[in-house]
Amino acid sequence: MSGSLKIGLLGRGTVGGAFAELVEQRAATIETAIGREAEISGVLTTGQGDFEQILAGADVMVELMGGTDPARQYVLASLEAGVPVVTANKQLLAKHGGELFAAAEKAGVQLRFEAAVAAVVPVIRVVQESFGAVEFSKVFGIVNGTTNFILSEMAATGASYAETLKRAQDLGYAEADPTEDVNGADAAAKMAILARLAFHTPVTLDMVDFEGIESVQPDDLAYAKELGLSLKLLGVAERLPDGITVRVFPCFLYPGHPLSPIEGPFNAVMVEAPEITEVTMSGPGAGGQQTAAAVLGDLVSVVTGDAPTHHAPEELEVLSDVASSFYIHLEVADEPGVLAEVAKMLADHEISVKSVVQRGIGSDARLVMVIHQCLESRFKQAIGEIGRLGSLRSPPRYIRVIEEEFV
Amino acid sequence: MSGSLKIGLLGRGTVGGAFAELVEQRAATIETAIGREAEISGVLTTGQGDFEQILAGADVMVELMGGTDPARQYVLASLEAGVPVVTANKQLLAKHGGELFAAAEKAGVQLRFEAAVAAVVPVIRVVQESFGAVEFSKVFGIVNGTTNFILSEMAATGASYAETLKRAQDLGYAEADPTEDVNGADAAAKMAILARLAFHTPVTLDMVDFEGIESVQPDDLAYAKELGLSLKLLGVAERLPDGITVRVFPCFLYPGHPLSPIEGPFNAVMVEAPEITEVTMSGPGAGGQQTAAAVLGDLVSVVTGDAPTHHAPEELEVLSDVASSFYIHLEVADEPGVLAEVAKMLADHEISVKSVVQRGIGSDARLVMVIHQCLESRFKQAIGEIGRLGSLRSPPRYIRVIEEEFV
Repeated sequence: MSGSLKIGLLGRGTVGGAFAELVEQRAATIETAIGREAEISGVLTTGQGDFEQILAGADVMVELMGGTDPARQYVLASLEAGVPVVTANKQLLAKHGGELFAAAEKAGVQLRFEAAVAAVVPVIRVVQESFGAVEFSKVFGIVNGTTNFILSEMAATGASYAETLKRAQDLGYAEADPTEDVNGADAAAKMAILARLAFHTPVTLDMVDFEGIESVQPDDLAYAKELGLSLKLLGVAERLPDGITVRVFPCFLYPGHPLSPIEGPFNAVMVEAPEITEVTMSGPGAGGQQTAAAVLGDLVSVVTGDAPTHHAPEELEVLSDVASSFYIHLEVADEPGVLAEVAKMLADHEISVKSVVQRGIGSDARLVMVIHQCLESRFKQAIGEIGRLGSLRSPPRYIRVIEEEFV
Repeated sequence: MSGSLKIGLLGRGTVGGAFAELVEQRAATIETAIGREAEISGVLTTGQGDFEQILAGADVMVELMGGTDPARQYVLASLEAGVPVVTANKQLLAKHGGELFAAAEKAGVQLRFEAAVAAVVPVIRVVQESFGAVEFSKVFGIVNGTTNFILSEMAATGASYAETLKRAQDLGYAEADPTEDVNGADAAAKMAILARLAFHTPVTLDMVDFEGIESVQPDDLAYAKELGLSLKLLGVAERLPDGITVRVFPCFLYPGHPLSPIEGPFNAVMVEAPEITEVTMSGPGAGGQQTAAAVLGDLVSVVTGDAPTHHAPEELEVLSDVASSFYIHLEVADEPGVLAEVAKMLADHEISVKSVVQRGIGSDARLVMVIHQCLESRFKQAIGEIGRLGSLRSPPRYIRVIEEEFV
């Protein structure tokens, strides 16, 4: 291979810094993926670096400075010089997407921007590549984590919008100036990008109507709960008989809607088309490291080109004895001491019990428990011994449990 | 462009037939996506067609015949002849993935297989391409729709496994011979493929331990409900300190787990890594048309190569007046006739009410309602008139609602 891959990095704030760190941490994986080493050959920050010089030494440019000016000039100059660009800049794409895509096409180089919408949730790639020949009817979802956190908290605590915003700021889920997040403008930029890709039509930010969550009252959430509704700030891009609509607004969802369980700072996007029914993607919609991971994914794609590699350079051992948590169902004799007997056998194997339900009388008595994680071999020994107890009316039944509990 | 794209099609069962239909239906979109027309130039079925002849005339081969023999020979022969292949054949990849990937790499042509795992849920592409340089810690999920339907139904109805399987067969969610689905073997093949891609290690089907759902008792589901648990057949591929584990087993989940709301024939896969936290993808995991849509997405990628196109050939009108459903919150005077007044004003604008909550007394009286979908311009007129009512103590508040209700 022709030496290392030289990455020009524009901006070294939260995401830029996380990206530089990730390139270092994942050096071995990146080398395996792209077939050569990668290094950051130049960094431009407000006080440091010269763009022309960075461009001259770069194989690929990563733009993480944000804002449209001078990001637009730098991205255009890179593409025109035949250097592919990866960016996380939603404002830039929502306002100047047409110009940038045309420049990339003219130069025959890639422009990738997964991280511009919902960070690590792979919605850009899925819309553009997985469903490259699908006629989408609708693309919609929760594309702003700050507002989703605030609405989840308001619903859970009954606190006011102002109090909850303050709490979100304290926890790092809202910026000191949260205007663009809470008024819907941030989500509108992301929806402009998604609508353009889904409907192959030149949507820009100024075409997107948006409303925010500033006027949501705790009352609304309380009454809505009685109707079974949960509130989300939704971005909706939809194909209608006469055109399309691209909007952002707070919206109630009925229970069972795939977006209603999305809580806190997570993002989720649904795509719909007759031939695919619907596909939902969710995950963290922000965060320096998560955004940087999406940028790195794009970078690898830019370099490796068309065919994903199927290399299997590792020979990892496939283990069979692992730790699991179990549900145990015992049909027991209705007599004193059975629980004590079973509990002692588990304790003898250092297996601890998480929860127990004892139910039924006479010939229907049952002992149902969930045990904490232990090595399966140890569990099998214990359950074997339990199975030989005289107080059991049938062989023990057991099913694994994933122990994580959520709020 | 150099004439039309010639597609060789191996197999014309449910998925093959749906694929052929989709290529015809979506001819215009495909032409836009790949820059030339596409046509199926040859079809091989049990009784018809000659493989060598089809191969000689094909620019790309689509293998939808299933089974490993003769699919393996045909796929290898295509790759060796320099013809890229798209397949939905999970058995083939789970058993002979290493050989096929090596053949593709040697020939320098693409082998794509999104539809082999979870149909239209884009998990293969996301694992391989979106997160090309991520070190996954875990890839797991619900990758068999038949068993998820059966478990959802058993939990909802309390019916036995045998009864529910019969019902699944009647509804087309289970095959006449459901063995491979219900015993976990189908899910095991998919997990072998995912584990290989996620961990870059040569996992094959015979390394995957699997258990099915045949011995799940309605009792287990009833008792588990008391513990707040829901049952899923999970495939789990996990990186551990000493190696990896790849297994399929029925497993209880606590409420709030991202996989617990996945009901019926849907599939869902979660990927975890420190730098991405977690990403969840869900959608229909089977179905002729849905599987065909995933195959078509792969086909477009094989043809277009590296850079996704950003063409915007359509100029769709962005509409602002669309139909929405609304929640309305009115602080009203505690006097008779207010509901009647409001209801009449809505009726005058042909707006129909879906649900009403009237609550509070005296200075806290409220009227909260959800109305069915109507044009927003019409709603704004109605709410304007309502706002002028003397019986309101403050301006009306309203928030949009997505009306779809789910089970």
